Amino acid sequence: MSDPNDPEMTFENRLGAVARDVAVLLGDLLTETPLPGEIARPSVLVGAMRHGALNGGKRLRPFLTVEAARLLGASGPGVLRAACAVELVHCYSLVHDDLPAMDDDDLRRGQPTVHRAYDEATAILAGDSLLTLAFDVMADEATHPDASVRAALVLGLARASGLGGMAGGQMFDLAAEASPNPHTVAEIDRLQAMKTGALLRFAVEAGAIVAGASPEQTAQLVAYGKALGAAFQVADDILDAESDEETLGKKAGKDAGRNKATLVKALGLEGAKKRRDELAFEAEAALAGFGEAARVLVEAARFTAARRS
Amino acid sequence: MSDPNDPEMTFENRLGAVARDVAVLLGDLLTETPLPGEIARPSVLVGAMRHGALNGGKRLRPFLTVEAARLLGASGPGVLRAACAVELVHCYSLVHDDLPAMDDDDLRRGQPTVHRAYDEATAILAGDSLLTLAFDVMADEATHPDASVRAALVLGLARASGLGGMAGGQMFDLAAEASPNPHTVAEIDRLQAMKTGALLRFAVEAGAIVAGASPEQTAQLVAYGKALGAAFQVADDILDAESDEETLGKKAGKDAGRNKATLVKALGLEGAKKRRDELAFEAEAALAGFGEAARVLVEAARFTAARRS
Repeated sequence: MSDPNDPEMTFENRLGAVARDVAVLLGDLLTETPLPGEIARPSVLVGAMRHGALNGGKRLRPFLTVEAARLLGASGPGVLRAACAVELVHCYSLVHDDLPAMDDDDLRRGQPTVHRAYDEATAILAGDSLLTLAFDVMADEATHPDASVRAALVLGLARASGLGGMAGGQMFDLAAEASPNPHTVAEIDRLQAMKTGALLRFAVEAGAIVAGASPEQTAQLVAYGKALGAAFQVADDILDAESDEETLGKKAGKDAGRNKATLVKALGLEGAKKRRDELAFEAEAALAGFGEAARVLVEAARFTAARRS
Repeated sequence: MSDPNDPEMTFENRLGAVARDVAVLLGDLLTETPLPGEIARPSVLVGAMRHGALNGGKRLRPFLTVEAARLLGASGPGVLRAACAVELVHCYSLVHDDLPAMDDDDLRRGQPTVHRAYDEATAILAGDSLLTLAFDVMADEATHPDASVRAALVLGLARASGLGGMAGGQMFDLAAEASPNPHTVAEIDRLQAMKTGALLRFAVEAGAIVAGASPEQTAQLVAYGKALGAAFQVADDILDAESDEETLGKKAGKDAGRNKATLVKALGLEGAKKRRDELAFEAEAALAGFGEAARVLVEAARFTAARRS
């Protein structure tokens, strides 16, 4: 096993190492053995949750939590738990967003979506249960000995994920798709800051919270997370416009077919690429105060902007 | 306004007074003004959440939280917030359970269900957001100054609501309906302890947690909550078998039409009524150590068993 503190370790190796740790812990969290306070765990529901959560994703969000915490000197099982809680929210959002009433996707990373592999009712419950488990993981004392840290993690995760964050962003996105009018850059920015940006930003902030960051460190990391989150979504819009289904593992070119609000439509492909690169630079600049220690997070921002899938 | 500490106040007046307080606070929580850490709240989503949460329910769960806390000498805005968090989880579960892929209900308390009043995608997001908001409310320091109390509230709520509690119970219920075999009393007991029992039990426990109960007090209140939760669901099965649509405000007699797992089917109508009365007595007996101070909770158990809607 590779040592994550080895300064010679490449970015890709480090990303892969965290992804493996995340998959192991998610696998441990998603078993049929009930926790204290639970009664029994239905095996079908556990199976559907595992299908939605153990799907070989890049695990960018938990990577950001782990690396933000490491930048501030914190690591270990508690940090990984906080990182996995963020990932559980991401996984729930994919399960629900794929539902027929939402984006109606049959494939996710080349595999059948949860409602195709199981059924709609099971997918709704699996998403609900992944979301609920995320808060369970954050609130458990195994995540941090200080309850005020755990409460701050729960509160931040809820605000990033709920009606004023991710879920609200999905609502704006569905409304934008149903609207006959073109979308302004300001509208798209807000929608994307909520739908994908809020959880990416909080993934970074969670690392700061769990590591006991100073207000100044937190502000720098949050600025980084905001810019990275925005870069992620522009890159996603660009990928959808350019990719084919094989590379992406899901339907491509579908944004143009619907009236999806994307920055490629609002700014053109070249304008969107310029914006993406500016945002990646902004993310990098926000970390200037940390110097060379922030190299991994800087590479994460470049990786996010340049990703091919 | 009636004084909730007035010993002469009838049970029904007290239940109604808490229901009004709950409706006011839920209304305050469900506005379009974003909280710190949120970006914006889509008005359609806020509207759908309000439709799902401000529907004139009896508010039995928050009542149990408020009265369990009051029994132990705690009251005030923080207790009401914890009570409302429990109710938000109940409301989310109704919104999702009513969806076409689940119980497919058009009416709830005589009003169109959220997916009928809005659409399926909005109902899914409204449920997700009500659930997320519940954890937000629990984790906020306005609920309790001690973060370890807030973390315990979050953890308990998650365990009662997730794959090993309410959501798992709904999964067992759907599986039971799809199964051609009759269901054993043990299977139905477990299903009901999860689907409706776990949150009712936790509603009582939340009052104990927020009031700083001793382990002995907590054990007594949890035993009460478990028995009351079981009595609630038997009473529900009996109501469905006996009621008509007008009284119930939703489709009645539907359990028999499907292969729903109910204690009326497993024990017969008279056997189910005997069971309900035994459970109400068990709930009452669990509170014997509190003496006359527990009168309101004893009446709540009787009310739960005898309710007509």
